Amino acid sequence: MGKRVVVVGGDAAGASAASQARKRQRDLDVVVFERGRATSYSACGIPYWISGAVESEAALVARTPEQHRAAGLDVRMRTEVVGIDLDRRVVHWRDLEDGGSGVEPFDELVYATGSVPMRPPVPGIDAAGVYGVQVLDDGVALRAELDAGHVRRVVVVGGGYIGLEIAEACRVRGLTVTVVDRSATPIGTFDPDIGEFVTEAVRREGIELVLSDPVAAIDVGADGRARAVVTASGRELPADLVVLGLGVRPAVRLAEEAGIPLGISGGVAVDARMRTHAEGVWAAGDCVESRHRLSGQRVVVALGTHANKQGRVAGINIGGGYATFPGVIGTAITKICDVEAARTGLSEAEAEAAGFSFVTAVVDSTTKAGYFPGAQPIRVKMIAERRNGRLLGAQIVGREASAKRIDALAICIWNEMGVDEILSLDLSYAPPFSPVWDPVLIAARKAFEAVEADVREL
Amino acid sequence: MGKRVVVVGGDAAGASAASQARKRQRDLDVVVFERGRATSYSACGIPYWISGAVESEAALVARTPEQHRAAGLDVRMRTEVVGIDLDRRVVHWRDLEDGGSGVEPFDELVYATGSVPMRPPVPGIDAAGVYGVQVLDDGVALRAELDAGHVRRVVVVGGGYIGLEIAEACRVRGLTVTVVDRSATPIGTFDPDIGEFVTEAVRREGIELVLSDPVAAIDVGADGRARAVVTASGRELPADLVVLGLGVRPAVRLAEEAGIPLGISGGVAVDARMRTHAEGVWAAGDCVESRHRLSGQRVVVALGTHANKQGRVAGINIGGGYATFPGVIGTAITKICDVEAARTGLSEAEAEAAGFSFVTAVVDSTTKAGYFPGAQPIRVKMIAERRNGRLLGAQIVGREASAKRIDALAICIWNEMGVDEILSLDLSYAPPFSPVWDPVLIAARKAFEAVEADVREL
Repeated sequence: MGKRVVVVGGDAAGASAASQARKRQRDLDVVVFERGRATSYSACGIPYWISGAVESEAALVARTPEQHRAAGLDVRMRTEVVGIDLDRRVVHWRDLEDGGSGVEPFDELVYATGSVPMRPPVPGIDAAGVYGVQVLDDGVALRAELDAGHVRRVVVVGGGYIGLEIAEACRVRGLTVTVVDRSATPIGTFDPDIGEFVTEAVRREGIELVLSDPVAAIDVGADGRARAVVTASGRELPADLVVLGLGVRPAVRLAEEAGIPLGISGGVAVDARMRTHAEGVWAAGDCVESRHRLSGQRVVVALGTHANKQGRVAGINIGGGYATFPGVIGTAITKICDVEAARTGLSEAEAEAAGFSFVTAVVDSTTKAGYFPGAQPIRVKMIAERRNGRLLGAQIVGREASAKRIDALAICIWNEMGVDEILSLDLSYAPPFSPVWDPVLIAARKAFEAVEADVREL
Repeated sequence: MGKRVVVVGGDAAGASAASQARKRQRDLDVVVFERGRATSYSACGIPYWISGAVESEAALVARTPEQHRAAGLDVRMRTEVVGIDLDRRVVHWRDLEDGGSGVEPFDELVYATGSVPMRPPVPGIDAAGVYGVQVLDDGVALRAELDAGHVRRVVVVGGGYIGLEIAEACRVRGLTVTVVDRSATPIGTFDPDIGEFVTEAVRREGIELVLSDPVAAIDVGADGRARAVVTASGRELPADLVVLGLGVRPAVRLAEEAGIPLGISGGVAVDARMRTHAEGVWAAGDCVESRHRLSGQRVVVALGTHANKQGRVAGINIGGGYATFPGVIGTAITKICDVEAARTGLSEAEAEAAGFSFVTAVVDSTTKAGYFPGAQPIRVKMIAERRNGRLLGAQIVGREASAKRIDALAICIWNEMGVDEILSLDLSYAPPFSPVWDPVLIAARKAFEAVEADVREL
């Protein structure tokens, strides 16, 4: 008889781990517990289903429970793991439909609980009509409210990726939308000179942006439902619906209770093979911390792409193979209204926090040859380490066909390239795709000049 | 008094060298000879001006002679350098307008003569109505013929980038277009499994493709004008106009006559700083050979992007600075009808010729998340070295938003990455930009599996 593997969480990380392990070792008994109604779905796709761009909820599901079962996994839906006993090697579970409960033994455990939306500690935050958008069931509930037709005014708290994507989705549906953010520019993981480009695009789309003004309270009506968001400066923003877009934190309560060690960042600590510090326990996805290859620090980055890779790595190792997850460099991309924005490496604030000294360069160019029909504006920012010119971070913002260029710079950072070498790279050129000096190369050239000028002054 | 620098050729390479040198060293006397009517123009943009997508010829000119003169360069237009005397340190020139001639002394010379279209040695190739499209003046002449209205049927000899781009431009103008190529698939610098994707797109656009059938002769009418293209198999393709799209070769006649050494590839040999083997003579652009970083061989790659970089490097060095050109890896991109195609590194044929043994992987995926509106097909091919899995080459073909992904893979090759590390890269992901596993990562995963399977069989 094969080993018994229990997987806690059946989305990207958990389901990938389970599938890979079972694929490699056919006699494994793999039980997957998922408290929601879906497995292996695209959480990142939720805003597009809410807006109607994606037609059905089912389209967001890459693999249904039935498909997983056909591949030999024992998938238990709507069943929540409520406790992990590392000594007795069992998990305690509860059936969310019928209230039943039980225990399930394991030889190896995969902890893939994902993340939970941040909730600011302000009055009214738990009122009805306040939604986090994290799991597919959240999206279902939110969309049901919007479909019911009583919502006219939406206030989104937090202008990060998810907050802005949801804001746009609501705007597409014809609603009046306000986004409140404590920072002076939205998507705070970008530097302000990039964020301001996004600010303009969002306002152009008719979304109200209230900046530099954190939320202070949710005003709750007599019916127990949120009716306005109140900011620190005292503004009262009427709302039929409030969406929290303040980011997420790793879902580690179960791990903490079980004694699975967390890292300094607050995520579950794992090694290169996705093993936790508890014997026979693996972890993957939004709940773990990763090594940032540039800063050397441990960070939690909740992204489906990491969850899939980490799940795959854990599964291969559980299945008797060998694979490692080599860390992250902070790459992210988003489309807000008609603007694309992407980043990789460290922002200015992150680079400072990590102890680096650096120069920066910002260039405005076009996505195609300037004379080519449909050429769109693109802004590229580079952050290069002083003296040696190593690329520490890059940000891109612009219209169509801008942001995916970030991948090239992510690979430069991955390989610790300096801006002097980057400007010589053999990148593709033809008029429908870039000016003869790609914007990325122009930025590298300018960054190199900044590095040299700085050296001269030393 | 400063040094005297003579530049032969005022397009991308020559003009860049001249500008950089003058910018760095204000007392340089810089004379630029250009036999054509334009400086610093985008040859790659010619097809789009012919089709009408680009409105004016002037839009293709990045910098006019007047602008160069304002920056302190002595630009002599329509003046051809007909001889270089390295002993006496002069060039002989001829004014193509008034027939006048003279000599110009130099301390340093920049050889930037570009390339000339390949002309197959077949009967009739020099007839009227047979056009190469290499310099802007060629484009002007070709467009004048098309504008005159007597051309209905165009035959393009050679289905490379330029050939197909011109074919598309003529098709856009409503002409009947046939492309003849000796290979079984067009754009012969790609492998056939990529080329077939292009074949379909070209035929869908109504362009006739005659493949595996080289041109044997141009049939010339009594008026001395080409009237048909005859292929090796005996097909006769009526033509009011014939365009040569067989690629180019470096324009080295002057260099050979002067005793400036050529390399084994047939281009002018240069070192890392773009110095030729003749004292005080520099070269840059389509006429030089470059080091291929992967094969180690010397190659001639005629591309505006290299010409600009090499010209900049030569100019910085002439101006007293220090810069090097680190070589090429064979990156190229094109848009044909609604298909984008790009390559980097070595094709299968090139890898074999360079002595490599390899495995390949081809994946079909989508440019956005599969469920996202507007997701387009994309095919990614990877060629990885046996045993160590180093990426040797990559090709991408697909619809909108496919091909620029090649830059990421170009940088992987530049850094000699293996496909196992590539599949772990932190690339950007959001549904409007890619599936959660970017097609590039899926291809790396599949290539890695192929490397492992191959190792097992060794």
